[in-house]
Amino acid sequence: MDKEKIRKLLEDVKDEKIEINDALEILKTLPYEDLGFAKIDTHRELRQGFPEVIFSQGKTLEQILKIVERLSIEKKFIMLTRANKEIYEMLKNIREDIKYYELARIILIGKRNKKRSTGTILVISAGTADLPVAEEAIITAEVMGNKVDRLYDVGVAGIHRLFQNTTKLFQANVIIVVAGMEGALASVIGGIVDKPVIAVPTSIGYGASFGGIAALLTMLNSCASGVMVVNIDNGYGAGYSASMINQIGEE
Amino acid sequence: MDKEKIRKLLEDVKDEKIEINDALEILKTLPYEDLGFAKIDTHRELRQGFPEVIFSQGKTLEQILKIVERLSIEKKFIMLTRANKEIYEMLKNIREDIKYYELARIILIGKRNKKRSTGTILVISAGTADLPVAEEAIITAEVMGNKVDRLYDVGVAGIHRLFQNTTKLFQANVIIVVAGMEGALASVIGGIVDKPVIAVPTSIGYGASFGGIAALLTMLNSCASGVMVVNIDNGYGAGYSASMINQIGEE
Amino acid sequence: MDKEKIRKLLEDVKDEKIEINDALEILKTLPYEDLGFAKIDTHRELRQGFPEVIFSQGKTLEQILKIVERLSIEKKFIMLTRANKEIYEMLKNIREDIKYYELARIILIGKRNKKRSTGTILVISAGTADLPVAEEAIITAEVMGNKVDRLYDVGVAGIHRLFQNTTKLFQANVIIVVAGMEGALASVIGGIVDKPVIAVPTSIGYGASFGGIAALLTMLNSCASGVMVVNIDNGYGAGYSASMINQIGEE
Amino acid sequence: MDKEKIRKLLEDVKDEKIEINDALEILKTLPYEDLGFAKIDTHRELRQGFPEVIFSQGKTLEQILKIVERLSIEKKFIMLTRANKEIYEMLKNIREDIKYYELARIILIGKRNKKRSTGTILVISAGTADLPVAEEAIITAEVMGNKVDRLYDVGVAGIHRLFQNTTKLFQANVIIVVAGMEGALASVIGGIVDKPVIAVPTSIGYGASFGGIAALLTMLNSCASGVMVVNIDNGYGAGYSASMINQIGEE
Amino acid sequence: MDKEKIRKLLEDVKDEKIEINDALEILKTLPYEDLGFAKIDTHRELRQGFPEVIFSQGKTLEQILKIVERLSIEKKFIMLTRANKEIYEMLKNIREDIKYYELARIILIGKRNKKRSTGTILVISAGTADLPVAEEAIITAEVMGNKVDRLYDVGVAGIHRLFQNTTKLFQANVIIVVAGMEGALASVIGGIVDKPVIAVPTSIGYGASFGGIAALLTMLNSCASGVMVVNIDNGYGAGYSASMINQIGEE
Amino acid sequence: MDKEKIRKLLEDVKDEKIEINDALEILKTLPYEDLGFAKIDTHRELRQGFPEVIFSQGKTLEQILKIVERLSIEKKFIMLTRANKEIYEMLKNIREDIKYYELARIILIGKRNKKRSTGTILVISAGTADLPVAEEAIITAEVMGNKVDRLYDVGVAGIHRLFQNTTKLFQANVIIVVAGMEGALASVIGGIVDKPVIAVPTSIGYGASFGGIAALLTMLNSCASGVMVVNIDNGYGAGYSASMINQIGEE
Amino acid sequence: MDKEKIRKLLEDVKDEKIEINDALEILKTLPYEDLGFAKIDTHRELRQGFPEVIFSQGKTLEQILKIVERLSIEKKFIMLTRANKEIYEMLKNIREDIKYYELARIILIGKRNKKRSTGTILVISAGTADLPVAEEAIITAEVMGNKVDRLYDVGVAGIHRLFQNTTKLFQANVIIVVAGMEGALASVIGGIVDKPVIAVPTSIGYGASFGGIAALLTMLNSCASGVMVVNIDNGYGAGYSASMINQIGEE
Amino acid sequence: MDKEKIRKLLEDVKDEKIEINDALEILKTLPYEDLGFAKIDTHRELRQGFPEVIFSQGKTLEQILKIVERLSIEKKFIMLTRANKEIYEMLKNIREDIKYYELARIILIGKRNKKRSTGTILVISAGTADLPVAEEAIITAEVMGNKVDRLYDVGVAGIHRLFQNTTKLFQANVIIVVAGMEGALASVIGGIVDKPVIAVPTSIGYGASFGGIAALLTMLNSCASGVMVVNIDNGYGAGYSASMINQIGEE
Repeated sequence: MDKEKIRKLLEDVKDEKIEINDALEILKTLPYEDLGFAKIDTHRELRQGFPEVIFSQGKTLEQILKIVERLSIEKKFIMLTRANKEIYEMLKNIREDIKYYELARIILIGKRNKKRSTGTILVISAGTADLPVAEEAIITAEVMGNKVDRLYDVGVAGIHRLFQNTTKLFQANVIIVVAGMEGALASVIGGIVDKPVIAVPTSIGYGASFGGIAALLTMLNSCASGVMVVNIDNGYGAGYSASMINQIGEE
Repeated sequence: MDKEKIRKLLEDVKDEKIEINDALEILKTLPYEDLGFAKIDTHRELRQGFPEVIFSQGKTLEQILKIVERLSIEKKFIMLTRANKEIYEMLKNIREDIKYYELARIILIGKRNKKRSTGTILVISAGTADLPVAEEAIITAEVMGNKVDRLYDVGVAGIHRLFQNTTKLFQANVIIVVAGMEGALASVIGGIVDKPVIAVPTSIGYGASFGGIAALLTMLNSCASGVMVVNIDNGYGAGYSASMINQIGEE
Repeated sequence: MDKEKIRKLLEDVKDEKIEINDALEILKTLPYEDLGFAKIDTHRELRQGFPEVIFSQGKTLEQILKIVERLSIEKKFIMLTRANKEIYEMLKNIREDIKYYELARIILIGKRNKKRSTGTILVISAGTADLPVAEEAIITAEVMGNKVDRLYDVGVAGIHRLFQNTTKLFQANVIIVVAGMEGALASVIGGIVDKPVIAVPTSIGYGASFGGIAALLTMLNSCASGVMVVNIDNGYGAGYSASMINQIGEE
Repeated sequence: MDKEKIRKLLEDVKDEKIEINDALEILKTLPYEDLGFAKIDTHRELRQGFPEVIFSQGKTLEQILKIVERLSIEKKFIMLTRANKEIYEMLKNIREDIKYYELARIILIGKRNKKRSTGTILVISAGTADLPVAEEAIITAEVMGNKVDRLYDVGVAGIHRLFQNTTKLFQANVIIVVAGMEGALASVIGGIVDKPVIAVPTSIGYGASFGGIAALLTMLNSCASGVMVVNIDNGYGAGYSASMINQIGEE
Repeated sequence: MDKEKIRKLLEDVKDEKIEINDALEILKTLPYEDLGFAKIDTHRELRQGFPEVIFSQGKTLEQILKIVERLSIEKKFIMLTRANKEIYEMLKNIREDIKYYELARIILIGKRNKKRSTGTILVISAGTADLPVAEEAIITAEVMGNKVDRLYDVGVAGIHRLFQNTTKLFQANVIIVVAGMEGALASVIGGIVDKPVIAVPTSIGYGASFGGIAALLTMLNSCASGVMVVNIDNGYGAGYSASMINQIGEE
Repeated sequence: MDKEKIRKLLEDVKDEKIEINDALEILKTLPYEDLGFAKIDTHRELRQGFPEVIFSQGKTLEQILKIVERLSIEKKFIMLTRANKEIYEMLKNIREDIKYYELARIILIGKRNKKRSTGTILVISAGTADLPVAEEAIITAEVMGNKVDRLYDVGVAGIHRLFQNTTKLFQANVIIVVAGMEGALASVIGGIVDKPVIAVPTSIGYGASFGGIAALLTMLNSCASGVMVVNIDNGYGAGYSASMINQIGEE
Repeated sequence: MDKEKIRKLLEDVKDEKIEINDALEILKTLPYEDLGFAKIDTHRELRQGFPEVIFSQGKTLEQILKIVERLSIEKKFIMLTRANKEIYEMLKNIREDIKYYELARIILIGKRNKKRSTGTILVISAGTADLPVAEEAIITAEVMGNKVDRLYDVGVAGIHRLFQNTTKLFQANVIIVVAGMEGALASVIGGIVDKPVIAVPTSIGYGASFGGIAALLTMLNSCASGVMVVNIDNGYGAGYSASMINQIGEE
Repeated sequence: MDKEKIRKLLEDVKDEKIEINDALEILKTLPYEDLGFAKIDTHRELRQGFPEVIFSQGKTLEQILKIVERLSIEKKFIMLTRANKEIYEMLKNIREDIKYYELARIILIGKRNKKRSTGTILVISAGTADLPVAEEAIITAEVMGNKVDRLYDVGVAGIHRLFQNTTKLFQANVIIVVAGMEGALASVIGGIVDKPVIAVPTSIGYGASFGGIAALLTMLNSCASGVMVVNIDNGYGAGYSASMINQIGEE
């Protein structure tokens, strides 16, 4: 392709169909296009296959509308995260194939038929107030073609609830632990399973939880190996990472 | 005693053994002595009964020597915390009845025969590096007349070790949990038992443990009720508080 | 009970009413149920006896309604903390035996007749702005069956007010000190009494009080022994811990 | 094994070789052992297969000696992290089959023959000062049976060095990015590849790098999806997590 | 007075008008009253002379109303700080002799005729956004009987404005410097004058000013001697302290 | 001008049109005016030539109105930053020659004809949410007489977009990089170009971005030389500094 | 003086002894020279009267030697703060009239005979570890000509010790409170006295005292009015400020 | 050069001296080399022209030796920053043309004859303890071919020293302000001059200076426009940036 474009150019040089100076000019600008191509194209490929993700927070309604309209021309599938109801109300006027996951604050537009991962991602939450973040992770992972299982409200304050559900723990390929306040759940689970654990601190709590810092530090300092951490409230990132882990080796 | 001193003064006034102006002068200075008396004397009483505690850290060898010499005149029992070996070497020259708990960094001078608490204090530590703080709590509680039990190296990374020792958990009156790194152990234990839990964050760890801040925040945000926290590495304070709780109701 | 369930199973094995393989299967799943049972059951027992506590903050009205409806089927007593008036207005439609403590932001549904602690818990507050947290501690402790006494508005800026009330200080079994701004009151009281002091920093203040951090640090660093700290504004946790301390030794 | 122990017990009950009450006693203690078994055994299994890891930092020479001596009785393979030369000098007196990776601060004792992962883990470091952490990750991953590739000194200050090595980027299953100072490298790589990226902030830097906090925050806030973070300087944890990800699906 | 009360008691004892036991009872309760008296009474004296200050922030309208009504019975003068317009509207219904300083957020009720300080307090502000805090300091100092001078909008970004007003600087007894953002003004002034400088950081600014922390740290680290700092936005405290300094030596 | 004023005075002295004592009086006040003059005059010159800048945030509508009215008497050009629509609506009543840049939150009143810089300032933004800050920098730099170029939405998550626009990078004299979240873009650009880079962290992001702290630290720790940082969201300061750099050597 | 210099210049202009252009040049540079002169001279006057203070910390022995040698030529009195023994040993070789206050880390060289303040400064310290900072304040205040009184080891953990010394409290003009750990002593004293209180947080403590931050925040948030704060461990600054306050009104 | 390499290749293709497939292979690897070239080559050019800079801190003596040996083969000029004496002692054994700037902690090896900037960079320091950082900036800027002027010890505590040197201020093209403690000097200078100011916070100070954070925040929040900030103690970065600014427009 690009390789062919360069070969064609070289042949033109050889055939004297093009001046050396002109060929030189073309080659001088190529690197950057090539750069995009060779490395980034598979990337872009991936993106065309995968939902175009719009982080809604901090964007005006007008900006979101313009982006969705522009994407609607060529794309079949659009995903918006951190989307409130107002955004949904606006967008359902221009796209009928829209679905709003209110708890997860995610809007999906268009269809995706990808379903191929064999392994399961388990999403565990400590408390009911952590659900929005957990659901954001779940919808993200499902959209990316993963089988997802839930285990909710098993915080360490009543750790027996967790131990009554160990089967789920051992059946998963990857585990996402969503917890606010002191976030101790990630360490406990990391100490039990031998699969990668993605810990998501949430901003749930008050006082010295400092909007999720306490949970974040707990998770970063987990004395259980195999625990990795994403940003506070970053359910999307956890779901995305879990999907990439779950789909390693799949073509 | 003091009450008697005032009564005597009043009798002297009545008997005209003392001038009213002089009695007035004496009474004017009394409030503060009385203040010490009425409220603080039981306190002082307690202190005479209880080891005079010297926080060694930040004091020079000379200062410590002077304090111990002064206390040696009238007191039978002296306790030094955060005491290094150098202090011990110096003090054993002037007092033979000295004992050094190297791990706990505590020096005891003289004897105390108090043994009366019936309940047990359980001291749990997450890792072996937390032992100095745990031992400081234990020696303190024992010196104050408590029965103390140990449960070591049961951090949440291998939580089954904890569950194999639940008997100890349920037999204790008060539980001290000593943990560094992410400090999740306090929450797990607080969720299991129905006794007061005193959590001691330690400065053990590296990176984002920030010298004990991570463990401190975890413990303050514990979603398990009944968890109280003392300062980072404050084994002495935990042992002291546990003793006061354990001896409530005892005379 | 559970013990009986296992005994029955063993008898069935002995009597050959059940196959060894089937008994094995049942026993294999037992550990986790037993785990809940043997360790957690007294815990659950306690909870059935004790108010089911719902932390309202961060939950939607719908979620709270569902939880209360579900608990209303089987439970006689429900407790909600951090409950605003809107929640109360909603719930009084479905339960008549409801009471709202507006200052403490606590809702109690149903009755509890437990009254057994002989000792007294004293709740001290530094300023009038600390009252909501102090009241949360008081209602919690009273519901758990404790005698509670108040001592309000005795902050260190006018320390004579405290000293005019020393009788209350010395009569209490446990003392809860609620203070914002610089939180020095806990240290002063910890230096006077020889009973456990639970310090609750509040988010009251401005500027460098940083939403309670100043008071929190003051309390953690108290040079008075016997001071334990709970999370900023955690009146409920203080009341709960004080109750557990006050009821040690009671059966 | 354990399953067989229970079956044997049941057969003994059936054969009346043991009293029901005695069997009951044995079973009553089982849950916690079983807990260890059913859930933790694969874990313990794994640990026996996998190097027993000793975090050396904060332990005394005596403590480490005792642990290694105890493990030397039954285990074939021991791993020590954060081990300085002094520890190595001490241990090579009692074990000949010892190897010291000075840069990585890792000691391996005994042999492990596990080699089975087909995918590659790529470890990228931003600067030469990040090498100790990078090497810790590499040795860990190799010991766990992974093929590991290196890409060193490709920090964003000279980003062309990175782009000259894109082949390595696209061939890896998992990528570990080790970077101090501003830690921007993780974001750049996360934006190029579609594989999981484990970011390890290092404490390298000065001034406002605050011992790794700057790099940690950069990595947590990465605008590239698929970036997960472990604790500052936690090369071991990154290698461990990468191994678990790389070996998903392998039996 | 109190001294007289005790003298009278002693005379009664001497004249046998009162039983020694009864006198003893009275004296036993005296310490705390005396404590209040001897130390605190001048304090209370001062307070009666000086405005009773109510910190309005964090108090409900009802609470403020009750306090003002109670104080209105016996006191002639009441001062409220951090008072919004709503409070003023409420209070002017019950007291006619009320005045509202909107910018300073201070309400004064009743009259004070104290005017005696000979020295001048100079209040300097860096920017116009610092005026509310500066005015709070000014009204406070004036109410306490001080002559106050203003020097506004002389921030270091245009330091010549400051130098055009040096006369005011050298005529003042005490200087209050109110500054937000980087707060450098306090250091500059502290380096010029040889009088005490009270620095008040304000929460004015954005970004890395962190609600006044930047200014606070600047002022605490002032390389000019003689600069003292009060809490962020604490205009009242600055005015109060300045008054105490200005009135030293006055009776 | 001012220089002329002094010359005129000296000539009057020489011509005996003015008494030496009167000239002395005038000169005695000059130092400070002179201070303004000699040092500040280019400054004041600049200010008269350059927009009088009013930082609107934290000022009341009344204060802004007064300032603009006062400036309107003598000045031709006024600039307001951080100005919301309400301010614009108010001001367009008194000045017709007003223009509002809503995204940049800047109001310009009057005309400026300065256009002289030959070099170009390039303003790069990482994401669309950073646009307000980027636009503030652009309008500021343009008003000060600079040619400004834009390069938007080239964050490191898709770094190929940046490399497709390298021509712009190499043509600029100064580069302003505006980025929130992890702020890595500044380091990448600083590593490519050999021109001064002014990095502006924005408060865009969530969780551990801490309102711009993460981006700020990233930029301060940039391992690329030549990166300088201004306050979070300080687009104005970046544009101002860039202009001063771009116009060095110009008269 | 300066005024005379300008008058002379004007006369020279009038007498045509100097060209207008030359006079203009002189006048252009005058403001800055005048600034130094007219305003700062009294300041310099003060400094010549007052000890030249050298902050030793962070300076090399060579630098200190050079400064002292240079000052020894013209000055009679030199003061060094934060001076260790090594500095003293070096300096006593070149100056015989040297005195070292080891605890206060202050070196005084030469004599000062100033003794004029009538009021007393009281320096209170909470613990013995705070003595170096307290002594630094005391020596500083004494050198500046103040009568200083001490009240040591009266921390709030045993507040009766404070109340037994109230006479000292009420006799002082200014009070310096030196306290580490939680720093509550400043609030207690500020609530008792009606004199300015200068609070000095010390870096004494451990764990969550964060090198003096806890005490600093406590003091800044003091609910007692009249408390002003200086930097952590800044005994010199406290002594200097106290002296300026104590000597107001004195000529 | 590289451009010539491609031109040569194209001519070879045209002249059929090379096969198209071989040319293709060469061109395929070019992009990244070209990437280096087109964008980075001037960069690399610059680097060859400009001293190769080695940040010594955190590197072992062996690593530094190897790097210098490798660079010694082809490079004429090497620069090491943060170099202690031990490094210098080691390196002077292998290179005679070495020079050590001890205060600046810089080692220069080989010669550089670049001298071309016409403008002056002024480096101002607040205190003598800031000199190492100031000197690092100066040596860096001088090595890069700039004329540098010094203005030392002019901190705001004695601001008249600054005003006596205003000529230097107005003659500079760029000003570097190096200041620790409260760092107010940058704001004062930024308010006087109309040239870019690069502020370098230093870690000089104690207590609440927090290792340079106080100065850093002061400088970031400067209310004077035109102040840009680099990392704490980053003298090298300041010198580098100042040079780039000073040499804009020069070829």
